[in-house]
Amino acid sequence: MTVEQLEALLADVAAGRLAPGAALERLKHLPFEDLPFARIDHHRALRQGSPEVVFCEGKTAEQVVAICERLHAATGSFLGTRASEEIAVRLQARFPGMIWNPLARVVHLGERPAPRPGTILVVSAGTSDLPVAEEAAVVAEAYGHSVERLVDVGVAGLHRLLAAAEQIRRARVVIVVAGMEGALPSVVGGIVGVPVIAVPTSVGYGASFGGLAALLGMLNSCAAGVTVVNIDNGFGAAAAASRICQP
Amino acid sequence: MTVEQLEALLADVAAGRLAPGAALERLKHLPFEDLPFARIDHHRALRQGSPEVVFCEGKTAEQVVAICERLHAATGSFLGTRASEEIAVRLQARFPGMIWNPLARVVHLGERPAPRPGTILVVSAGTSDLPVAEEAAVVAEAYGHSVERLVDVGVAGLHRLLAAAEQIRRARVVIVVAGMEGALPSVVGGIVGVPVIAVPTSVGYGASFGGLAALLGMLNSCAAGVTVVNIDNGFGAAAAASRICQP
Amino acid sequence: MTVEQLEALLADVAAGRLAPGAALERLKHLPFEDLPFARIDHHRALRQGSPEVVFCEGKTAEQVVAICERLHAATGSFLGTRASEEIAVRLQARFPGMIWNPLARVVHLGERPAPRPGTILVVSAGTSDLPVAEEAAVVAEAYGHSVERLVDVGVAGLHRLLAAAEQIRRARVVIVVAGMEGALPSVVGGIVGVPVIAVPTSVGYGASFGGLAALLGMLNSCAAGVTVVNIDNGFGAAAAASRICQP
Amino acid sequence: MTVEQLEALLADVAAGRLAPGAALERLKHLPFEDLPFARIDHHRALRQGSPEVVFCEGKTAEQVVAICERLHAATGSFLGTRASEEIAVRLQARFPGMIWNPLARVVHLGERPAPRPGTILVVSAGTSDLPVAEEAAVVAEAYGHSVERLVDVGVAGLHRLLAAAEQIRRARVVIVVAGMEGALPSVVGGIVGVPVIAVPTSVGYGASFGGLAALLGMLNSCAAGVTVVNIDNGFGAAAAASRICQP
Amino acid sequence: MTVEQLEALLADVAAGRLAPGAALERLKHLPFEDLPFARIDHHRALRQGSPEVVFCEGKTAEQVVAICERLHAATGSFLGTRASEEIAVRLQARFPGMIWNPLARVVHLGERPAPRPGTILVVSAGTSDLPVAEEAAVVAEAYGHSVERLVDVGVAGLHRLLAAAEQIRRARVVIVVAGMEGALPSVVGGIVGVPVIAVPTSVGYGASFGGLAALLGMLNSCAAGVTVVNIDNGFGAAAAASRICQP
Amino acid sequence: MTVEQLEALLADVAAGRLAPGAALERLKHLPFEDLPFARIDHHRALRQGSPEVVFCEGKTAEQVVAICERLHAATGSFLGTRASEEIAVRLQARFPGMIWNPLARVVHLGERPAPRPGTILVVSAGTSDLPVAEEAAVVAEAYGHSVERLVDVGVAGLHRLLAAAEQIRRARVVIVVAGMEGALPSVVGGIVGVPVIAVPTSVGYGASFGGLAALLGMLNSCAAGVTVVNIDNGFGAAAAASRICQP
Amino acid sequence: MTVEQLEALLADVAAGRLAPGAALERLKHLPFEDLPFARIDHHRALRQGSPEVVFCEGKTAEQVVAICERLHAATGSFLGTRASEEIAVRLQARFPGMIWNPLARVVHLGERPAPRPGTILVVSAGTSDLPVAEEAAVVAEAYGHSVERLVDVGVAGLHRLLAAAEQIRRARVVIVVAGMEGALPSVVGGIVGVPVIAVPTSVGYGASFGGLAALLGMLNSCAAGVTVVNIDNGFGAAAAASRICQP
Amino acid sequence: MTVEQLEALLADVAAGRLAPGAALERLKHLPFEDLPFARIDHHRALRQGSPEVVFCEGKTAEQVVAICERLHAATGSFLGTRASEEIAVRLQARFPGMIWNPLARVVHLGERPAPRPGTILVVSAGTSDLPVAEEAAVVAEAYGHSVERLVDVGVAGLHRLLAAAEQIRRARVVIVVAGMEGALPSVVGGIVGVPVIAVPTSVGYGASFGGLAALLGMLNSCAAGVTVVNIDNGFGAAAAASRICQP
Repeated sequence: MTVEQLEALLADVAAGRLAPGAALERLKHLPFEDLPFARIDHHRALRQGSPEVVFCEGKTAEQVVAICERLHAATGSFLGTRASEEIAVRLQARFPGMIWNPLARVVHLGERPAPRPGTILVVSAGTSDLPVAEEAAVVAEAYGHSVERLVDVGVAGLHRLLAAAEQIRRARVVIVVAGMEGALPSVVGGIVGVPVIAVPTSVGYGASFGGLAALLGMLNSCAAGVTVVNIDNGFGAAAAASRICQP
Repeated sequence: MTVEQLEALLADVAAGRLAPGAALERLKHLPFEDLPFARIDHHRALRQGSPEVVFCEGKTAEQVVAICERLHAATGSFLGTRASEEIAVRLQARFPGMIWNPLARVVHLGERPAPRPGTILVVSAGTSDLPVAEEAAVVAEAYGHSVERLVDVGVAGLHRLLAAAEQIRRARVVIVVAGMEGALPSVVGGIVGVPVIAVPTSVGYGASFGGLAALLGMLNSCAAGVTVVNIDNGFGAAAAASRICQP
Repeated sequence: MTVEQLEALLADVAAGRLAPGAALERLKHLPFEDLPFARIDHHRALRQGSPEVVFCEGKTAEQVVAICERLHAATGSFLGTRASEEIAVRLQARFPGMIWNPLARVVHLGERPAPRPGTILVVSAGTSDLPVAEEAAVVAEAYGHSVERLVDVGVAGLHRLLAAAEQIRRARVVIVVAGMEGALPSVVGGIVGVPVIAVPTSVGYGASFGGLAALLGMLNSCAAGVTVVNIDNGFGAAAAASRICQP
Repeated sequence: MTVEQLEALLADVAAGRLAPGAALERLKHLPFEDLPFARIDHHRALRQGSPEVVFCEGKTAEQVVAICERLHAATGSFLGTRASEEIAVRLQARFPGMIWNPLARVVHLGERPAPRPGTILVVSAGTSDLPVAEEAAVVAEAYGHSVERLVDVGVAGLHRLLAAAEQIRRARVVIVVAGMEGALPSVVGGIVGVPVIAVPTSVGYGASFGGLAALLGMLNSCAAGVTVVNIDNGFGAAAAASRICQP
Repeated sequence: MTVEQLEALLADVAAGRLAPGAALERLKHLPFEDLPFARIDHHRALRQGSPEVVFCEGKTAEQVVAICERLHAATGSFLGTRASEEIAVRLQARFPGMIWNPLARVVHLGERPAPRPGTILVVSAGTSDLPVAEEAAVVAEAYGHSVERLVDVGVAGLHRLLAAAEQIRRARVVIVVAGMEGALPSVVGGIVGVPVIAVPTSVGYGASFGGLAALLGMLNSCAAGVTVVNIDNGFGAAAAASRICQP
Repeated sequence: MTVEQLEALLADVAAGRLAPGAALERLKHLPFEDLPFARIDHHRALRQGSPEVVFCEGKTAEQVVAICERLHAATGSFLGTRASEEIAVRLQARFPGMIWNPLARVVHLGERPAPRPGTILVVSAGTSDLPVAEEAAVVAEAYGHSVERLVDVGVAGLHRLLAAAEQIRRARVVIVVAGMEGALPSVVGGIVGVPVIAVPTSVGYGASFGGLAALLGMLNSCAAGVTVVNIDNGFGAAAAASRICQP
Repeated sequence: MTVEQLEALLADVAAGRLAPGAALERLKHLPFEDLPFARIDHHRALRQGSPEVVFCEGKTAEQVVAICERLHAATGSFLGTRASEEIAVRLQARFPGMIWNPLARVVHLGERPAPRPGTILVVSAGTSDLPVAEEAAVVAEAYGHSVERLVDVGVAGLHRLLAAAEQIRRARVVIVVAGMEGALPSVVGGIVGVPVIAVPTSVGYGASFGGLAALLGMLNSCAAGVTVVNIDNGFGAAAAASRICQP
Repeated sequence: MTVEQLEALLADVAAGRLAPGAALERLKHLPFEDLPFARIDHHRALRQGSPEVVFCEGKTAEQVVAICERLHAATGSFLGTRASEEIAVRLQARFPGMIWNPLARVVHLGERPAPRPGTILVVSAGTSDLPVAEEAAVVAEAYGHSVERLVDVGVAGLHRLLAAAEQIRRARVVIVVAGMEGALPSVVGGIVGVPVIAVPTSVGYGASFGGLAALLGMLNSCAAGVTVVNIDNGFGAAAAASRICQP
């Protein structure tokens, strides 16, 4: 319920067009009807370009299809992450126009959103980090952002990263994806003055402990301006980067 | 704002006694004004016997005294846990009638609350667990409950515990406080049919890892009906037990 | 052996109706004969409505069937949790009247127990938490309790939870099931005055570490009245809730 | 060295105004002189408002004074975090105009920087989180940002937070500081559409494991747009927020 | 080389039957030739009843068969633990007289060893702990010990354990096998005066962390006389128990 | 109450010397009086040489003195571990004949117990492990055992250990105390055929994590016959060794 | 770009042989063009015998084949580790001359490199450690080093190790591969005066926690001269050993 | 006992100058007397420049003085690490010529050892890492090596490190000391072709977990040729580097 609607309701009561009892019924749940306002605002925001996001992992194909059908009916679009091949194939059968990026494990249906300001640069340390990096990149693109990619620039061969320093500095926000020791965000954070979102990946073995080493490394970064999301959470990095880009 | 107040407000608008604009001002923050109602309900509940609780650890004596003064002014009582000797002495100088239990590290000011139904039994495994057990017992007493204590009945000498089996079974809820391997709640949970709240303590050394061993043991209890609170959290156990006792 | 039985025995000895040697035989194992009494009490309690519970995970279908046959013969009922499809199918072939809830992974045979007082509300944060939430709900129902459900009310969209505040406050005990950061029990614990049993789930990835993040979050809850059970332990929450409901 | 400076240098050589040997001296360290250029750029940025930052913890008072003297000589200002009372007193004796915030443990000397766009809102869950929250707020102010504060709005009493929803939504970026279960960022992230930087604190005991519980909770946040910094790292949150605010 | 052999050698040198240079050759490697003696002593000890033990896990069937063939050729017997069905079937094809215990995953070939003094009692907490308990029992029997078993006597139903107290006290050493919270060794250690070897098992879920909870519980046992082996290490418990039994 | 006492009581009832009511009073607590029998047996066993043991850490000097007074009154002796200098001085003032071993932090009062069979060898890896090793040795001596010591024989200088191989093999049980990587028990376990009790110590720094590295190393020992106690638990090792020595 | 090349370029500009604009183009990327020089140096070094190394795990067969084709085209050789059977078979179909070591999971194509000085000794504790040990040995051989192997010399049977003491002392560097308690490097480090590279393996179960126990043991080694690489990182040990051998 | 001594002894027996029985006495402990040969070799090696090393932490000043007196008597020198001010002052009173480096916490007495080949470069990331870096540097100098230092070259300001690239490449071995995220060894390992020994330090806070983050980062380094020692173990790095330098 918007303030305008509330004004109208009160005017109706003042004018005798609405009985106090009837108004009471509508108002006494106001605290909770008001909060759905936020949801409606959210929906409006989504209609302005940001599709809803379904985390497919741990859901059955039936569940994902049903959720996407509901989203599609409401907004004409949906965006899903961590989609297995089985889920993607099932969705494509149901939504032939859907786009599926198998590397990023992202499914997407909907019109191209209005372009948003600012460039998001997704930097990845190694080839094995690409699925997470692509998840971030594809989600950011689905949100309407301009996205650039810089791949295979791990700290053991710094010259590849330094050669792209100017490109890095042009970005509005940099997402840095790295596994193993997770040192890349510190180096990038020392080069640029824009926000750096670090995404640890579970790439590694032994004492990487499923990405813990990279996560701890990034949390202890000696470079200012670095913040961190969960291991392998490319989507989360894109969502945060999108919020940063919006003025 | 109660439903009655809302009815009155709407009646005032309908009767022209209140302009829609003025009503709007009062109503548009309703979601948040309504929630303070819950706080007022909460205050009422407190006035029925449950004093506010101040976690003193990590606060300066000045801060604790200031908070207790505000609580005392509002409700005529206060209850504080983890009170160091310094804090307790400072409070006693300010509130001469305050009661201080140094073993439990609890301070308490206020009239005796109305008695509440049900007996809370606080069982502790060893002498070193007594501060945590007493925190639970003293807080429960401050809430108006009847409290019994059973001390030094660790699992390495089961006969002491078994000798009190009937007393244990009479309780409405049993709080079991134990460090080291934390096995006592499982044994108690196998004897009684009432809820058992397990409190791991940081008593131990080496591989107790500050209470982690006891915590994990209690979470993995093979006895049904056992729930767990944080390490050394005697207060939390008493708060939960109090909620259980209230029908 | 009750006190009455003991008086009778001693009277028999005093009257010469029982030789001291024969009395000795009966008395020297008294500690252990007495404890089986507790088991019989327990059986009696079970016959009053609470079926035995078999944890099926890690047992072969043969073992589960054999245990259920023994329980069925003794009590006419059984209740099993963590039942795989294979086990459930095997049991249904043997006990055609058995009810199987595949989502909750619970199997149940037996007459409807006598209703018990109090409503248990099972609140779950997300769709992926449903199997654990349903295990809790179905077990509580099998114990004879009235159970209500509130699903998909995670803290990132608070209005859904707040809209149900009144329903939450009506419950005798609330079971809150959540994975990822496990923040929901703190929010619920701040709304209600009844006991809250928090069930962390293994839902999540990366730094959720199989439910550890949710478990730690719940143990550190800043809301009073929250106690915690093991990760994914819907059964344990139901068992504790049932004990709380019984006056 | 900018491209323009490099063009000028080469033109000087071509014109005979600069001997090749002299140019060599300046150019042969170009890779490294160029990177110090970045430092000079950085210095320039700092002179525009962002003071250098000294992490005082683990340094002797002598070391901190010496470093601050060098910074002061170069830029006329310095900013220090984690300053103990001993260090602050020593610095104040040397720099009488220095400002010392004992709660935030921050020392600052320098002119007021030019105001920067955007408001940074610092939200803290409890009284004990204030030192970390103040570190973030004071550093952001030293960087020239407009800072607002919202204190003691932990999730166990949601109405206090919800009452400030509009204030929260007005911010360009929200820093959320919380210990114990660290649930507050998830709730804030569900309310606003701007970036949320979560700062776990070491406030808590037992299974908080020095802030690990809050850290894991925040990393697993179910709300989009939340990124995380190290435990107690108020400075890092301010630095990242500052980068976000700068268009 | 025995002392007798060394005397003989020196006598040969003194008598001129052996040149100093030839003696030197034999003596200069004495440290290492002597240590193989220990191996021969070890072999002798094995021939007196203790078969060699092959840890089959992580070895191919070919490797296990080859090792068992060498052991069989040298000693006429072998004992293998953690034998998969594939390995056991391959071994039985090669050694038709071999005994295979699928529950304990133990394979054994050889004559019955001479009986050894003392009874080893293997106590297990639950049905799921049986594979580990049986590994301990079968290995101890293969070593020639008299073994008794006590099953399903977990601490949540103490009377079953207490009913067997006399049997427990008769043992020379008690091996206690338990998963989940691992509390059983503490209870047994409080009942008996003989050595108790605690074997944590990986039975459990969630916060059992693969047996870590049981392991920590046992290491922190408040009962004296309890020592611990690795998670699921039934063999190690049997080996230690066997050494204890041998006077 | 012994069986003989029970026979006498029943005979008294049969003979009319004891009224059934009076017998009832004594018998109705029989299950629990019977378990105190075990305690009395235990006391008797203690009077045969094993003094009671007080864990002084975490107790006040007053508490320790009070407990020792009670033990002294009952048995004429006491044994305390982890005694600080303050506690020891207080005890010595009260019990002038008490012996205090400051290195082992053990206090002991009582006559020399009757000698027990078997030699306990306490082997320690480094100088810093001596307090734990001495705790084990002094407790074992207080129990009446013959104790030998072998110090500073860490695995980085194996010849020192091998030089004592014969001494090691003569022991009935070997207690091996080591910090850092905790490798010594594996080496000792490979040399001897007697039980080896491994005691990890908290000696070390960095990745020793308070003794965790040594603890894990010992639990994973590749040598058979090695069992483990808690970090720094010299007393526990002595108690287990004593039980092993008693036939 | 060398200093000489820079002098020449500047001389050309001074002499009018090179326009400032053309020089600018070459110079403005100097920092980054210079670093590729290092890459070329690196390539040169590789052509002197050390093949490039591809970590195959987590890459598809297609990716590995494509990378190897590029390496083969550039250098005539490639070296791959962690190659699955599927990848190896695919590579062999493409490169018939390729050598595949299935135990070490290493693939290698290229001429025999020029021999390098120094012998690398690879010592392994048990049969299950062989894959990691072979990875180290095969990689070191591919680098042109002389490699010796010593297998199955775990610390529980020290004589086998001591018998090879002279062989161990002859090596230029010793790689020690061990799982479980990881004690072998300490023993080897105490025998030799050359560098010891310790490789923990994930061999073990229960409290080995995937190699963590061995890793911690090796990091806490009481022997000087021991350094450690990641769990199962045979390649890393070989790479470090190769650098040590090169004077 | 050297081979020459053994030849002489056997010649004495052959010549009748030594009775076989007397020779037996000297020879029967040969395995262990032989190992002391290694110790004597070790001593000889030490006299050639490498002083014995005393780890002072956890020892009393008395113990350290006594050990140093013994070392001084035997070799004329000693070297101690982790020496507190109290210990250093006590030692200086006893050995006026002793050199004490308070930053490195190293004490040293003895003539300058003969120079050894190769330069050891000690690189440290930040000012707070200096104590560990100096421990490594001072110990390496005490061993006779040429040592260079490179300080404050953390990865957040790469140009400082890159400016020293040539110096880094000239070293025979590089010791890299870093706390926080521990990324520096990866960057250095990518620049040089010599062995890199990484030393994690406990510098940091929060999620550095006492150096664990740096340790894990270094173990997971994506650069080849990097090996790791324990947290804060500057001595261990120097000892390994010294072994590497010796051809």
